[in-house]
Amino acid sequence: MTRWKCICAYDGKGFSGWQSQAKGGSVQDAIEARLADVLGKATRVHASGRTDAGVHAAGQVFHFDADWTHGPDKLAAGIRHRLDRGIQIISVRAASPKFHSRFSATGKVYEYQLHLGDADPFKRPYCWVILKPLDLEAMRQAARVLTGKHDFKAFSALNGSEPGEGADTVRDLRRLEVVAKGKNVSVVAEADGFLYKMARSIAGALVSAGEGKLSPAEVRSILESKVRTPRVQTAPPQGLFLRRVKYR
Amino acid sequence: MTRWKCICAYDGKGFSGWQSQAKGGSVQDAIEARLADVLGKATRVHASGRTDAGVHAAGQVFHFDADWTHGPDKLAAGIRHRLDRGIQIISVRAASPKFHSRFSATGKVYEYQLHLGDADPFKRPYCWVILKPLDLEAMRQAARVLTGKHDFKAFSALNGSEPGEGADTVRDLRRLEVVAKGKNVSVVAEADGFLYKMARSIAGALVSAGEGKLSPAEVRSILESKVRTPRVQTAPPQGLFLRRVKYR
Repeated sequence: MTRWKCICAYDGKGFSGWQSQAKGGSVQDAIEARLADVLGKATRVHASGRTDAGVHAAGQVFHFDADWTHGPDKLAAGIRHRLDRGIQIISVRAASPKFHSRFSATGKVYEYQLHLGDADPFKRPYCWVILKPLDLEAMRQAARVLTGKHDFKAFSALNGSEPGEGADTVRDLRRLEVVAKGKNVSVVAEADGFLYKMARSIAGALVSAGEGKLSPAEVRSILESKVRTPRVQTAPPQGLFLRRVKYR
Repeated sequence: MTRWKCICAYDGKGFSGWQSQAKGGSVQDAIEARLADVLGKATRVHASGRTDAGVHAAGQVFHFDADWTHGPDKLAAGIRHRLDRGIQIISVRAASPKFHSRFSATGKVYEYQLHLGDADPFKRPYCWVILKPLDLEAMRQAARVLTGKHDFKAFSALNGSEPGEGADTVRDLRRLEVVAKGKNVSVVAEADGFLYKMARSIAGALVSAGEGKLSPAEVRSILESKVRTPRVQTAPPQGLFLRRVKYR
């Protein structure tokens, strides 16, 4: 039995998110269906984390265990064969049996893409169109408030009725940058891990800061309150990309 | 009655091409449905030319005549409202009554996008993935053979049974460039006009030249034969973009 580590990309718009659904339609379902064909038996894959419906990935990582003696190239070719064209298998390699796509991860990088003004039809499915002017300097000030090790409960969708309640909500947001290139503005966030909807909540808060609706001081006060408020909007899924999962 | 000139972009993958179809589903159908709502009556639009199913446009031009007294901005906003998100109305302006999107055009620019090696899921719907190495210099030599004023019948899909039979098939291919940027290779073609499937046939022939399947001399001999042969492949639609329509 070998543990296989795979890196993949997917266009989130055709899927119900990463995680397997009873009615199918998820990225995991599509990949597991291919694996069942290749390996001749149902095989569960484990990702670095879920991505929500509509969220994209450029470098999602997953692993699975399989008896396979024909090497990684033929395994990759088998998975790729007839795989939904919205999913790309970037690499497949044998990993240590101790490797775990989720628990071995030391960090993740998300990018949230904004577009200032109407976007063309090729860009629209991959950004959040912002029609009002954005004050990038105000966004960067808010980003500096959020950077570092904090309890991000106020920037997640956790609440008392959800299973995550009571879990550790402290994360180390190592990097939070606002990168502008013409009309394309990206929020790049790197942390040891992200809470449910944390990347989209941070992007939403930075856009509010850029629109003058949240001051850096208000962002700080929301962060310190550790309570989710409607003043923190969740940015829509189609702008978010899981860029990279980091391992030691 | 005013003649209105519009520039639009569309992602071809969601449509059955530009031209109106009995069963709907074309870009023209979607735009005419919006116009009927805005103007309160069925209004025919006329494009610079058709694009096939799956072909994209970054700068298609169309015109229509309408009694509209509220200015171009409100007309544009009306058309945009609830328009399919795969179509973008870039501009709307009043034109001379003599302006005709097709007959006034002095040139068109098409770009055909190739990708060397597997493309990610965000690029795949907008390119032709070429897995074999391409000799770009051979492509450029073939491009030089085709550049200029020629009878392009051998590089079109016209044949005796189609309505275009007997029509003038001489076109002035003013520019045919192979532009490479890493794994992205584009064939940029500018002509006074393009025959049916001419842009895709030229892209297909240049790829064959790059793969060593057609020498520049063979490209010349096919051009001079004025007869379509299976040796000229039609590149798939998803790599083709109508970039610009030129007017005096």
